Amino acid sequence: MRYPDHLQKLIEVLKRLPGVGNKSAERFAFHLLNWPASHLNELSNTIKEIKEKLKNCDTCGCLIDQSFCKFCDLERRNPSTLCVIASARDAFAIEQTRQYRGLYHVLGGLLSPMDNRGPEQLSLPRLLNRIVGGSIQEVIMAFDSTLEGDATALYIKKELNNHPIKISRLALGLPLGSSLDYVDEGTLARAFSGRGLF
Amino acid sequence: MRYPDHLQKLIEVLKRLPGVGNKSAERFAFHLLNWPASHLNELSNTIKEIKEKLKNCDTCGCLIDQSFCKFCDLERRNPSTLCVIASARDAFAIEQTRQYRGLYHVLGGLLSPMDNRGPEQLSLPRLLNRIVGGSIQEVIMAFDSTLEGDATALYIKKELNNHPIKISRLALGLPLGSSLDYVDEGTLARAFSGRGLF
Repeated sequence: MRYPDHLQKLIEVLKRLPGVGNKSAERFAFHLLNWPASHLNELSNTIKEIKEKLKNCDTCGCLIDQSFCKFCDLERRNPSTLCVIASARDAFAIEQTRQYRGLYHVLGGLLSPMDNRGPEQLSLPRLLNRIVGGSIQEVIMAFDSTLEGDATALYIKKELNNHPIKISRLALGLPLGSSLDYVDEGTLARAFSGRGLF
Repeated sequence: MRYPDHLQKLIEVLKRLPGVGNKSAERFAFHLLNWPASHLNELSNTIKEIKEKLKNCDTCGCLIDQSFCKFCDLERRNPSTLCVIASARDAFAIEQTRQYRGLYHVLGGLLSPMDNRGPEQLSLPRLLNRIVGGSIQEVIMAFDSTLEGDATALYIKKELNNHPIKISRLALGLPLGSSLDYVDEGTLARAFSGRGLF
């Protein structure tokens, strides 16, 4: 016997969530069936209001819920450094470290010809305009250490070649608390070549 | 920097889903931020309409999307056997086996004093009325093989003690395709004691 139509539809739309296959979607759907109406309405309304209540800053692309962007607040932040990130989510992770007080620029992804993401899709021209026209002295590239991250970093470095701007990228090495036994050889090699005086 | 309020709220409501902790909820929430409005509306509306479009059959408790319950269809199903299940979801799983053509009764859970689920919370009195007053000759208890499943099965068996009804429970044994090396000793012991002539 097939599931009732509405249940099947619920399962299908839940499967659009990342990492949610048929089994998880079924589990979520049957769990939702037992939720009180108030919780269902809350979830439904919160989802419906996403586009209306959350925006991306026109300047840096970070996530904001009002017209003023705290990430671009020049009174509190250092306008001479710019941290380039792939997604708005990364800004929150970096803020949590309390190590960085400069500005951000969200690319909206990393270069990936396979996925049809070229420089135009990633607001890379807009980034270059922002750097070249502004007061920025250092660009920090905080990308994943993947092929796409490497490609994006290389592209930006090449484009900024003729400008007197310091360009840096996050350090590669052992994760904090990691054991050498469990670290892959690529990471270990980078940790070696990037070793610092102690 | 804290997440914007609406994002934080979205994460909190997503955490009510089973098995979804902070990390998964954040992942879902940031994924939802990138969904097109049409997909967001679809998910939102599907969730909102759950209570309106999906009901439980008044007789058997199975999930239905109209007033007619296919699980109770006496023209196509055998009214002399009744399969007792913990949740409406189990009926779909059992239907998929194509082994059973009788009726169902959904308890809505299993006996669990720890969780305050006694016979009244589980519509057990209603089940007993249905059995005693009807044409049912066999009651099949299709419960988890857990403490709660055992307790519920024992309770039903005791209550039906004075009635001339056959009571059975799902077989315990090796799962199909399993290897003896990986089967726990409890399962192996039950598979031994329940062995059949070959």
